[in-house]
Amino acid sequence: MNVIDAFVKKNVEWLRATGPDSDVVVSSRLRLARNLKDFPFLQKLVPSQQEQIVELMRGVLEKSTVLKKSHYLRYNDLTELDRQFLLERHLISREHASEKGHKAVAVTPDEQVSVMVLEEDHLRLQVFQSGLNLTESWRVVNQLDTEIEKNAEFSFSPTLGYLTACPTNVGTGLRASCMLHLPSLVLTKQVHKVLQALAKLNLAARGLYGEGTQATGNFFQFSNQMTLGQQEEEIIDNLASVIRQVVDQEREARGFLGEKRKAKFEDQIWRSLGTLKSARVISSSEATQLLSLLQLGILMGLVKSNLTHQDLNALFLLIQPAHLQKISAKTLNSTERDVRRADLIREKLTQVNL
Amino acid sequence: MNVIDAFVKKNVEWLRATGPDSDVVVSSRLRLARNLKDFPFLQKLVPSQQEQIVELMRGVLEKSTVLKKSHYLRYNDLTELDRQFLLERHLISREHASEKGHKAVAVTPDEQVSVMVLEEDHLRLQVFQSGLNLTESWRVVNQLDTEIEKNAEFSFSPTLGYLTACPTNVGTGLRASCMLHLPSLVLTKQVHKVLQALAKLNLAARGLYGEGTQATGNFFQFSNQMTLGQQEEEIIDNLASVIRQVVDQEREARGFLGEKRKAKFEDQIWRSLGTLKSARVISSSEATQLLSLLQLGILMGLVKSNLTHQDLNALFLLIQPAHLQKISAKTLNSTERDVRRADLIREKLTQVNL
Repeated sequence: MNVIDAFVKKNVEWLRATGPDSDVVVSSRLRLARNLKDFPFLQKLVPSQQEQIVELMRGVLEKSTVLKKSHYLRYNDLTELDRQFLLERHLISREHASEKGHKAVAVTPDEQVSVMVLEEDHLRLQVFQSGLNLTESWRVVNQLDTEIEKNAEFSFSPTLGYLTACPTNVGTGLRASCMLHLPSLVLTKQVHKVLQALAKLNLAARGLYGEGTQATGNFFQFSNQMTLGQQEEEIIDNLASVIRQVVDQEREARGFLGEKRKAKFEDQIWRSLGTLKSARVISSSEATQLLSLLQLGILMGLVKSNLTHQDLNALFLLIQPAHLQKISAKTLNSTERDVRRADLIREKLTQVNL
Repeated sequence: MNVIDAFVKKNVEWLRATGPDSDVVVSSRLRLARNLKDFPFLQKLVPSQQEQIVELMRGVLEKSTVLKKSHYLRYNDLTELDRQFLLERHLISREHASEKGHKAVAVTPDEQVSVMVLEEDHLRLQVFQSGLNLTESWRVVNQLDTEIEKNAEFSFSPTLGYLTACPTNVGTGLRASCMLHLPSLVLTKQVHKVLQALAKLNLAARGLYGEGTQATGNFFQFSNQMTLGQQEEEIIDNLASVIRQVVDQEREARGFLGEKRKAKFEDQIWRSLGTLKSARVISSSEATQLLSLLQLGILMGLVKSNLTHQDLNALFLLIQPAHLQKISAKTLNSTERDVRRADLIREKLTQVNL
């Protein structure tokens, strides 16, 4: 599949670490859930209607300037590995990746914007930005929403707002989320306190790959739970203001580790690099954990290297199972992937000296 | 203390890894327990008698050709750190190092021969050789014994043999022991079977520093338990023949790991090196364990390096607490030692590439 293969070699725009506060906030993401007025919700769609929507949306999405030059990928043309690959790049959801049938996803060349067709809702519009940049994400996703609405009528209730397959999305249909890298809050054992505080504010905490996944390698995804009764801007501002506090706490914890626990902390960072540069077999979760500490060491100026923040962000992605297989251009079982992953990491870290 | 400081910079002759089977057998050691006929055993000696023996033995030992150019170190002239240092080099025993009073040790410049004065017995003659070389050790210690006996009369019973402070040493007064490096038998979990078999043969297994110490870093010291009712040559031949079998088993286990468990095994070796080359804080026991695996990797040709077997043998010694302090020329507490140890290891392993 040529489009997918082209993706393998590209850097993900929103992993460039160029956005605000990107020392802590990896990325911001907004998604809007939308459904077409003229069709029943997904669960009641018969296959012919599904096929009809996939075709219909190809035409509609083509007209959007936000989606200019985007690829429209039909699931029936993709292998399971391709879909797993798109999932690892956060372009489609876990549920979307595992199900069969008529589905599609439109992806812009820079991968900042995608529209999933026939996920839980008829349409899921999503925009990614580097760092804490929900305002820009909102501008883009709002424009995309407006452009699509010119050529498609959405299910909308004047009292409730946008109608969605799951009641938790009714209203704005908006989910705003930020991916945070909080190694120091984890090392200083403060992260649970933070998670508890966020739960009280009705913010959900999840792992790297959304709902139902565990936080790995000190990465946490925070998002709003409420979509009803609040303006979009209010939801976004609320989340951003909480995230800013978490960012401050993580930075404070980094300072604490670097000053008060210097010896032990530096030892942990260097040992992580030592293991990454020497292992011949490594699991995805161990690698993610160690790369997280290396990232911290580089950010704090402890480990000097030509390796940029962006290179490391990319590496977190490249060591995922589907990416490893795409790079290797062959199917690899779990044991083979652990070996290939270790090889790849050693290769990428050649320029980082112990 | 000039003599001790000179030792710090020297390589220990019996750690040169030049002896037979030194891929598995680090060293062979023989010791003879002897007591002077004209004095009561140690526990009944009054301080003035102790002083008398220490002075007397200086003169007697000086006449031995085996002890030519040896240093006669009186404990009263040594600091506690000096004694700890001599203990780490196996020149004096643990009991000897911690006790105060009139005691001394004669050490040859190559450190292959030493005589402890007023340890558990009046005299403990010991000879070290690299590898499995009990025959040569016996030749040397036997000559030393004969030379000393020319100028001192030993407690001897025609029926029992040499009399000693502890009945377990009566008869020959001989303890023969070999220090074995058995990383592969440990990794393949076969070592307990070996230890059980040796116990049935009345051989004792101990750690690096003799009685009451645990095996660390896959090093085991095996020795005869019986000193009575057997000729010296018989004791030595018995031990050597058992050791040869253990050597074969360790070599077989190395082959098994290198062939049947290649990936996992190589990963362990390289990770050990990675940690050694990166740690900023490391305990003695962790370092010994990791160096043991690195040693194995070098012996098996997995890790290519200019670092010789002897260099590594020396490193096991240099990372011990007293050695670290002697090298640094200052007192270091436990935390400071863990940092200094990590520094030293990184420095020594600069030439070993990941």
